[in-house]
Amino acid sequence: MYIEQVNSPQDIKQFSAEQLRQLAGEVRNALLTKLSAHGGHVGPNLGMVEATIALHYVFNSPTDKMVYDVSHQSYTHKMLTGRKDAFLNPEDYDVVSGYTNPRESGHDFFTIGHTSTSVSLACGLAKARDLKGGHENIIAVIGDGSLSGGEAYEGLSNAGEMGTNLIIVVNDNEMSIAENHGGLYQNLKELRDTEGRSSCNFFRSLGLDYLYVGEGNDIPSLVAAFAKVKDTSRPTVVHIHTQKGKGYAPAEADREEFHWEMPFDLETGKPKVDCSGMEDYHSLTGKFLLEKMKEDHTVVAISSGTPTVIGFTPERRKQAGRQFVDVGIAEEHAVALASGIAAGGGRPVYGVYSTFIQRCYDQLSQDLCINGNPAVITVFMGTVAGMNDVTHLGFFDIPLISNIPNMVYLAPTCSEEYFAMLEWAVRQTEYPVAIRVPGVAVVHRKEEFDTDYSELNRYKMTARGETVAILALGSFYDLGQALKNKLREESGVEATLINPRYITGLDEPMLEELKVGHRIVVTLEDGVLDGGFGEKIARYYGNSEMRVLNYGLRKEFADRYNLDELMKANRLTDKQMAEDIAGILE
Amino acid sequence: MYIEQVNSPQDIKQFSAEQLRQLAGEVRNALLTKLSAHGGHVGPNLGMVEATIALHYVFNSPTDKMVYDVSHQSYTHKMLTGRKDAFLNPEDYDVVSGYTNPRESGHDFFTIGHTSTSVSLACGLAKARDLKGGHENIIAVIGDGSLSGGEAYEGLSNAGEMGTNLIIVVNDNEMSIAENHGGLYQNLKELRDTEGRSSCNFFRSLGLDYLYVGEGNDIPSLVAAFAKVKDTSRPTVVHIHTQKGKGYAPAEADREEFHWEMPFDLETGKPKVDCSGMEDYHSLTGKFLLEKMKEDHTVVAISSGTPTVIGFTPERRKQAGRQFVDVGIAEEHAVALASGIAAGGGRPVYGVYSTFIQRCYDQLSQDLCINGNPAVITVFMGTVAGMNDVTHLGFFDIPLISNIPNMVYLAPTCSEEYFAMLEWAVRQTEYPVAIRVPGVAVVHRKEEFDTDYSELNRYKMTARGETVAILALGSFYDLGQALKNKLREESGVEATLINPRYITGLDEPMLEELKVGHRIVVTLEDGVLDGGFGEKIARYYGNSEMRVLNYGLRKEFADRYNLDELMKANRLTDKQMAEDIAGILE
Repeated sequence: MYIEQVNSPQDIKQFSAEQLRQLAGEVRNALLTKLSAHGGHVGPNLGMVEATIALHYVFNSPTDKMVYDVSHQSYTHKMLTGRKDAFLNPEDYDVVSGYTNPRESGHDFFTIGHTSTSVSLACGLAKARDLKGGHENIIAVIGDGSLSGGEAYEGLSNAGEMGTNLIIVVNDNEMSIAENHGGLYQNLKELRDTEGRSSCNFFRSLGLDYLYVGEGNDIPSLVAAFAKVKDTSRPTVVHIHTQKGKGYAPAEADREEFHWEMPFDLETGKPKVDCSGMEDYHSLTGKFLLEKMKEDHTVVAISSGTPTVIGFTPERRKQAGRQFVDVGIAEEHAVALASGIAAGGGRPVYGVYSTFIQRCYDQLSQDLCINGNPAVITVFMGTVAGMNDVTHLGFFDIPLISNIPNMVYLAPTCSEEYFAMLEWAVRQTEYPVAIRVPGVAVVHRKEEFDTDYSELNRYKMTARGETVAILALGSFYDLGQALKNKLREESGVEATLINPRYITGLDEPMLEELKVGHRIVVTLEDGVLDGGFGEKIARYYGNSEMRVLNYGLRKEFADRYNLDELMKANRLTDKQMAEDIAGILE
Repeated sequence: MYIEQVNSPQDIKQFSAEQLRQLAGEVRNALLTKLSAHGGHVGPNLGMVEATIALHYVFNSPTDKMVYDVSHQSYTHKMLTGRKDAFLNPEDYDVVSGYTNPRESGHDFFTIGHTSTSVSLACGLAKARDLKGGHENIIAVIGDGSLSGGEAYEGLSNAGEMGTNLIIVVNDNEMSIAENHGGLYQNLKELRDTEGRSSCNFFRSLGLDYLYVGEGNDIPSLVAAFAKVKDTSRPTVVHIHTQKGKGYAPAEADREEFHWEMPFDLETGKPKVDCSGMEDYHSLTGKFLLEKMKEDHTVVAISSGTPTVIGFTPERRKQAGRQFVDVGIAEEHAVALASGIAAGGGRPVYGVYSTFIQRCYDQLSQDLCINGNPAVITVFMGTVAGMNDVTHLGFFDIPLISNIPNMVYLAPTCSEEYFAMLEWAVRQTEYPVAIRVPGVAVVHRKEEFDTDYSELNRYKMTARGETVAILALGSFYDLGQALKNKLREESGVEATLINPRYITGLDEPMLEELKVGHRIVVTLEDGVLDGGFGEKIARYYGNSEMRVLNYGLRKEFADRYNLDELMKANRLTDKQMAEDIAGILE
């Protein structure tokens, strides 16, 4: 096999065209073998095999520097830059992350996992090169989907006036995770249809030189194009038309499903673990909203390029019609759009991952909360139990969202409470409301839940005890319950248990009341402690006898952690917390 | 005067062309009279007089809905929609805000003050209209400068696929606050030069219909264009070429200076108060960085459309050459660019207002801090004493920035400490460093300041006392000193005074040491309490006997407040705090 000879990009420089072609086949096979066993980004990587080989054939990494957008398509790059074993040997599969990572290799320049950043980061490398008098090529590789993000546009427009070497490879596979959205995509189609000759050209309008490669999975065509722009003195787009999922029939056929996939059967493309019968909050939310849409034609669900996060499968998107809007990977626009719809009397619900709502702090503050418009945001995967890549953590949404005035950020503890809150949020017209979807696995609880949350900041005491009061927020409510049980067993303390429900404010009467009969208040939150919920409780009791213990996560960028270990490291087990409390009670 | 007859837009519908022309003259005179006496946005408003009159002549506000980007150009809109007295009567000048405001008028739909949001908000109004089956026109008015922001692009691209009525008036005055930056602006020039006929058209590339009006200060031309697109069923750009500062020679001549101006002499255009001899942190920073640039050709200053914030006047920009980069109003790109430059071995310093850094939480987290690149960010006007419009508050940067892992956020207390920290920050290569420029007025202190801040989270005890320890952060250090004096006078307590310096971490050894001899720890911060510095101190002492009092601002969107009143309302005077403390000590 050729791939076995490749320990650095230098090793492919002498390959013939035929050898490069065979190498591509080997890379693709290795990708499919690993991905089917391990899971990961399938479509983006299969489509970029040839282009990555051609890039490394033409350019001299790491002197020439490549920056991959999102970097979920960088597996071939990793294989060619000394990390092939992590794709060839099953025991080494987890040696590499799913994204570029400077700690792994000198061929990676950034840890990247969010979209639309590559052009700006590459502009920075180009600027540093120019200040230092260097001459290497700087290359950004960005997918068509990522072009919908504002940061990509800012980068492209700034690149357009840099007047220096910067090569932007636009990997156009005609797809985002789902289908693309935005007027831009008509222009990309026009460029494909005219083999790049259309005179109306988005990239040229931003001052960029432009070259089109129709055969984006053909190594000789790509090599010719890259050779042509190598060492250019101008910012230049090379627009390559590739096929997402190339070379694997099931991925070519269902490009949305195979963007990222759990382990699957290579023969059939079917997932190895059948999750079809399992409940999840995404699908439940989609189902719920579809019902609401039928009752009220002004209810509209919004996604920013991840429609299934809010449960809008292709089938549900069809059913929702104009009551579903995918704005592309444009979180800023999504929030402002929601605010505008709410201002106009519609009932918008924007569904987004915790990690991606980071894109829109200013829109939450300025476009939404200053205006006090009653838009609803459902924040998914705001939990330590969710995605564990450093670029996709769900720890930080509480400090991000809950310190913005006028926002009502709710933390339901289970499915029933979540939908009671969502039902209220969609109906009410007073507040911007965000709801932190409670964790990953769907939890059910047989309990009466309020149907009206308009009287703000009223915590719910679910068990009245003494000495110790546990404020267990949202998805950590069960941990609070476990702590209560543990305290009973180990210290004979019958603790008070409280479901705070509101992240954005204090129930001062209840907190005041706790001063009677309680010595310790414990807060639990499924997120970073700094700037979070517990610190507000600590501030409240700062001038009192009450002892306050805040439990949550240390402020750090954990990466590919083991959940149990991270919980233990933060003393987030019932046993550890009970020990801490026992130490005080002694 | 015609303007005196105008109480609503209906009142101009019957005006002849000549009457409209005279009305424009009257409006312009009123603007100049008010602005020269009161200060405000000069250039943007003078340029938009005719277009605003034409909009209200053609469309039927508030049924047809206008959304003004930034809304700093909305003064004429206010005069035509029932608020003329606030421009004609000096005693009513402060009745209106400097931005659109739904509380003032049913003709305003959003409170807006940040750039690049109007198209997205208008998309929301259009979507709500369509869901409800309405037929009114939705109009966004956006300046060419605002087009450099990513949110504007996301809005335009999404508008491009809406296939519905949405009219986007691009007010092209060939300027941002300073000159425009970005490849886009070459395309705007090409469109102006060809009277809109260039086949390469940024707006058309995003799927938008397009119409050009060369005479953007000519009412009949504008009326004809707006009448043409009224009730269109397509998203349509009307690109109007206007003159910033139109009709006032000093503003036409110096468009950067007259973007926003303090009260000025109408005859000469000179400011009424001569600030030229006064020190300010902007200019001092620019001077400092220019010196650094001479020593090290990899030092580069970055601005996002507000070069003088970081002290880069046109003269300094010229001197800096390629070591100064203005990216346009593209805060996201600015942070990613800085990270890329730092990764490439350059020494970037990005200067930005507190209120605008809100645009880049995700870039701070993902592009910068996960990567740990040693870029430097100077945060200006992060203080309650700065801008007091609700859209421009400087209260929120501490929760925003300081809860991000890996970030080192420093709070100098005076000019000398600020430049000691900046000197270190530019030199070091270990950390992403942000520095909170200490307030508005330049404070000098004769004290030795460290030159090395690489050992993190070491607070500085400036006076060792007992019973009470005051942690006075950054620009509130002087308030801490005043409190110390007050406590001595009124309670006979000689308090400990600490300059924490590091917002992003705790000096645990020092906090532990305070447990000896101190009963009360007081924190002071020039920002919102929620998610801020003081709460971390409260958390630290939660499980101890120490009483903690956190002083700072309540979480609210204060608007056009009186500084003294707001300070008092938050018990932020030395007298009030001393009272609180005395109450505990009794």
